Amino acid sequence: MTRLQLLLGLGICLATPAMAWEQVLIDHDKPAKNWRITSEELGIDAPTPFSVSMRTLHGGRQEGVSLIEIDNGSMRMTVVPTRGMNVLEAVAGEVRLGWDSPVDEVVNPAFIELNGRGGLGWLEGFNELVTRCGFEWVGHPGEDNGELLTLHGRAANIPASRVVLQIDEKPPYAIRLRGELQEKAFKKLDFAILTELSTEPGRAGFSLHDTLTNQGDYAKEYQVLYHTNFGTPLLEEGARFVAPVKQVSPFNPRAAKELSDWQRYRGPTRDYDETVFNVVPYADEQGQTLTMLHNRAGNLGVSVGFNTAELPVFSLWKNTDTEKQGYVTGLEPGTSFSYNRRYQRPLGLVPKIEPGEQKHFRVSYELLVNSAAVDAARKRIEAVQAGRDTEIRDEPLVDLSKD
Amino acid sequence: MTRLQLLLGLGICLATPAMAWEQVLIDHDKPAKNWRITSEELGIDAPTPFSVSMRTLHGGRQEGVSLIEIDNGSMRMTVVPTRGMNVLEAVAGEVRLGWDSPVDEVVNPAFIELNGRGGLGWLEGFNELVTRCGFEWVGHPGEDNGELLTLHGRAANIPASRVVLQIDEKPPYAIRLRGELQEKAFKKLDFAILTELSTEPGRAGFSLHDTLTNQGDYAKEYQVLYHTNFGTPLLEEGARFVAPVKQVSPFNPRAAKELSDWQRYRGPTRDYDETVFNVVPYADEQGQTLTMLHNRAGNLGVSVGFNTAELPVFSLWKNTDTEKQGYVTGLEPGTSFSYNRRYQRPLGLVPKIEPGEQKHFRVSYELLVNSAAVDAARKRIEAVQAGRDTEIRDEPLVDLSKD
Amino acid sequence: MTRLQLLLGLGICLATPAMAWEQVLIDHDKPAKNWRITSEELGIDAPTPFSVSMRTLHGGRQEGVSLIEIDNGSMRMTVVPTRGMNVLEAVAGEVRLGWDSPVDEVVNPAFIELNGRGGLGWLEGFNELVTRCGFEWVGHPGEDNGELLTLHGRAANIPASRVVLQIDEKPPYAIRLRGELQEKAFKKLDFAILTELSTEPGRAGFSLHDTLTNQGDYAKEYQVLYHTNFGTPLLEEGARFVAPVKQVSPFNPRAAKELSDWQRYRGPTRDYDETVFNVVPYADEQGQTLTMLHNRAGNLGVSVGFNTAELPVFSLWKNTDTEKQGYVTGLEPGTSFSYNRRYQRPLGLVPKIEPGEQKHFRVSYELLVNSAAVDAARKRIEAVQAGRDTEIRDEPLVDLSKD
Repeated sequence: MTRLQLLLGLGICLATPAMAWEQVLIDHDKPAKNWRITSEELGIDAPTPFSVSMRTLHGGRQEGVSLIEIDNGSMRMTVVPTRGMNVLEAVAGEVRLGWDSPVDEVVNPAFIELNGRGGLGWLEGFNELVTRCGFEWVGHPGEDNGELLTLHGRAANIPASRVVLQIDEKPPYAIRLRGELQEKAFKKLDFAILTELSTEPGRAGFSLHDTLTNQGDYAKEYQVLYHTNFGTPLLEEGARFVAPVKQVSPFNPRAAKELSDWQRYRGPTRDYDETVFNVVPYADEQGQTLTMLHNRAGNLGVSVGFNTAELPVFSLWKNTDTEKQGYVTGLEPGTSFSYNRRYQRPLGLVPKIEPGEQKHFRVSYELLVNSAAVDAARKRIEAVQAGRDTEIRDEPLVDLSKD
Repeated sequence: MTRLQLLLGLGICLATPAMAWEQVLIDHDKPAKNWRITSEELGIDAPTPFSVSMRTLHGGRQEGVSLIEIDNGSMRMTVVPTRGMNVLEAVAGEVRLGWDSPVDEVVNPAFIELNGRGGLGWLEGFNELVTRCGFEWVGHPGEDNGELLTLHGRAANIPASRVVLQIDEKPPYAIRLRGELQEKAFKKLDFAILTELSTEPGRAGFSLHDTLTNQGDYAKEYQVLYHTNFGTPLLEEGARFVAPVKQVSPFNPRAAKELSDWQRYRGPTRDYDETVFNVVPYADEQGQTLTMLHNRAGNLGVSVGFNTAELPVFSLWKNTDTEKQGYVTGLEPGTSFSYNRRYQRPLGLVPKIEPGEQKHFRVSYELLVNSAAVDAARKRIEAVQAGRDTEIRDEPLVDLSKD
Repeated sequence: MTRLQLLLGLGICLATPAMAWEQVLIDHDKPAKNWRITSEELGIDAPTPFSVSMRTLHGGRQEGVSLIEIDNGSMRMTVVPTRGMNVLEAVAGEVRLGWDSPVDEVVNPAFIELNGRGGLGWLEGFNELVTRCGFEWVGHPGEDNGELLTLHGRAANIPASRVVLQIDEKPPYAIRLRGELQEKAFKKLDFAILTELSTEPGRAGFSLHDTLTNQGDYAKEYQVLYHTNFGTPLLEEGARFVAPVKQVSPFNPRAAKELSDWQRYRGPTRDYDETVFNVVPYADEQGQTLTMLHNRAGNLGVSVGFNTAELPVFSLWKNTDTEKQGYVTGLEPGTSFSYNRRYQRPLGLVPKIEPGEQKHFRVSYELLVNSAAVDAARKRIEAVQAGRDTEIRDEPLVDLSKD
């Protein structure tokens, strides 16, 4: 039992004495297995019945991958313990939050060489709604301090070492799924990341709360980015991104050409590839901010909320290429942009975590099911902007031609 | 269910309505397990009883590897779903088609770093009768377009994602084993390869029929090579390779020295290492061609047939080093030779596959059990040659000293 | 069945006819499973009852890792078949031989890229009491012969392919655990390493006896190093290393500064990192030598014995950094020091193994539980030294600044 697990255990006892049902799903002495539980079996008479289930995939490069499905009655979220507790998709009625990557399988990290393809091996497994990037680094592959940093770090390819399901026994019967990631190497780093996905019966949304602990004795650089990816039906020609924007800049010269219309999306566009915009969002006095993607009609959307004290910057990734190439946009709150780490140090976007320190990262996702919900989110975003100016920088923050 | 699986499903229904028994052996919800079926259990009263079985290996680097054995009554073929549906060996009576690699284990790709050993990690698992090479590339390791291409591509190290056994319920009771390989990476490629091995009860041979589908929206380069490897008893001092040859050239200066006697084999030869000859075969009007390896006495051989419209070139790999080093020859029909891809583009040997296009690759293997069978094969080869000239090039097609 | 297994089988029959109970724990047709046996169940009325058990770990990067525990009544040794038959720890009463690495998990090699981190991927799994290094090479990562040699070779990340437990049915009821490692690659090498850990009921120690066989037809370079690692309680401020020393030299300029006090240890020291001293030990007429680590009070220690005909050199690794960084010292008998292989060839520390040749490596570990035991070990060491001179070289044997 790690210190973190011990603290977690105490935390549970102190915070929820005899109020939460808890089940360990995966542990060192407990393999993942096919399993299911329902609110009815738990004796919970929730207005919206719910269930949680676990199963294992076989064949191909997904051999041995575990999936956990939380169906809260309104939304069914699929979490992948074998891949960094990533969220594969979230389905509410006929709307799926997620996207169609060419990568069909949920790939077991055992079959991926992150160092392959010049550091782009990560692309062989990338297909989730929420892909954790970090925590030692994020960003494009490249050398830094004499080491090849592979695309977006290791988190998505670390299997969770202990997975616990907790369900409150009192309304609103919160459902919490926790999994611990260990990102460790002798002499290099000693990170423990306690991930948590929580939701409540009847909610068309979910929240992430990750706690990064530096278990080592030395301060370390870290970076994190929540690569949240949406395809159709939210993404379509004329769909829009809305946020309280303090500063926006193009990731590279390619994006600079589309700066004038950066919040609007194209339909699937042959040879488009991708554009990325670096956003510094405004927040309210508590640091809370909200971003939104909505469809052309403005009657379907998703909001992504976070705290700029934890995740100060945001990348908007517009990969509106053809459908089969992966028609997708990424709303990506993070400590950092998507440049290689060596470019982000001068920007002040490679923070440090002290020995024993904990860093919290909270991101909330809500499906906006009609015009009223989209409009309400827009109003909240406008309230955060509060009439403040947006700085539009014509030039990228980083000159990638110099290396 | 992928589009390919859907099409396959329809294809089966249309082609063989109620005529073929079918069993899914491995799928996303169906792990490999120990299993066996016989013609008797199927109620098939074939002249030659047959059976198919599946088992899983344990320990070492072969932990979790599945093997499927098809014993058609005359030949027992062992297929490795975990390694690209490669054919480990085919045994008919006292004759084994296959070879003795120093690699004893059937290595699970989870334990191989293809990018290790400077791109030669593939050698840590190489021991099959038929090793699929491709489909994004084949050839020697080296940089191309700024990326390290590892030896002979990924196919041999991709576990099959869905494996189906099909047995015709009418004579000749064809046995077909299909497995799908997914070679995919976001932004890079979206290949699905439906492999098929088929045989019939009583046949001392088998056929491969692979279908490569470009599921993406962009044309992509591809390469494929069927690395078919034979040791003793076929290979011995004085064994010969026979083919209808339009052009032959040495792979490199080392091979050039042995060009005069390129179709004859040495016995196990200390410090020989290997020579490779690039062959452009003649074919008949339908594109069909035939090659043969036979022993010194000419009373035991194997024929390898293919279509030059699908696989236009052929590599003869003569690795007649000592027995423990791996005394083996490769008869390798392919789209390409074994040079790194960057050398093959100028030769016109890096074809493209259009979006949605399917490419078929068919190779047939027959054991030639006596002089009559060897002679018959020789006559068929002569008929294909039809007296046409053979161009013998003294110099390699590629100058490997320039890089 | 390999030749080695065959010979082993014969060896057992010849050497111990009907005298040893034997159980195969892992084999190609026998997966690891939860299992336990006791001396009582074996009908052995040993003065000290003993037991052996096996279990499998789950979750995180230790998914599928097997552990075998031998509890001989005085000491409980944990062996990791999945990681090169390494010894994770050995616990006798309140004393644990082993250390606390930041790496908590016993990491399955399937999840490690040895070629990652510039060849330092090995560090993501390093946490054992005895970590086998070798057998193709040991030492720091770097290029040699155009190939990146990753830190300390592959042995620690090769799962054992066949694991056999043998217990003598007569006093002293020796317990032997054997596992075979296959380090093989076509054209490159064909090494089989039969590892053996043996102990006896009531002994606070154990012995390793590894047999490296070159199964190939060509002589090959090899290297081996037994990376034996101790933390608290043996290691503490004022703890000392004792050995019969023919020559000692600093590994690098950093170590040179501490040469005057190289046999004494610091307490956990912030920013210390590590120093390494290269030792050439004296041996007795049979080649036997003994080294010791003991605590400050000199009433607790461990001895490490080996034969300089097998393992001629020794590295003392003093990693007395902070506790959480990994407060640990390595006593490392080997064929070689820890320099990259290209530096060790000129030192004559890259031996060769001929075709079919076997090399034996024997290392014995004994816990020294009180002052008398520590003093007795010191006297044995002094007897080996026999008053002979120690050469203290001020300069490293290798100039690492030249590359």
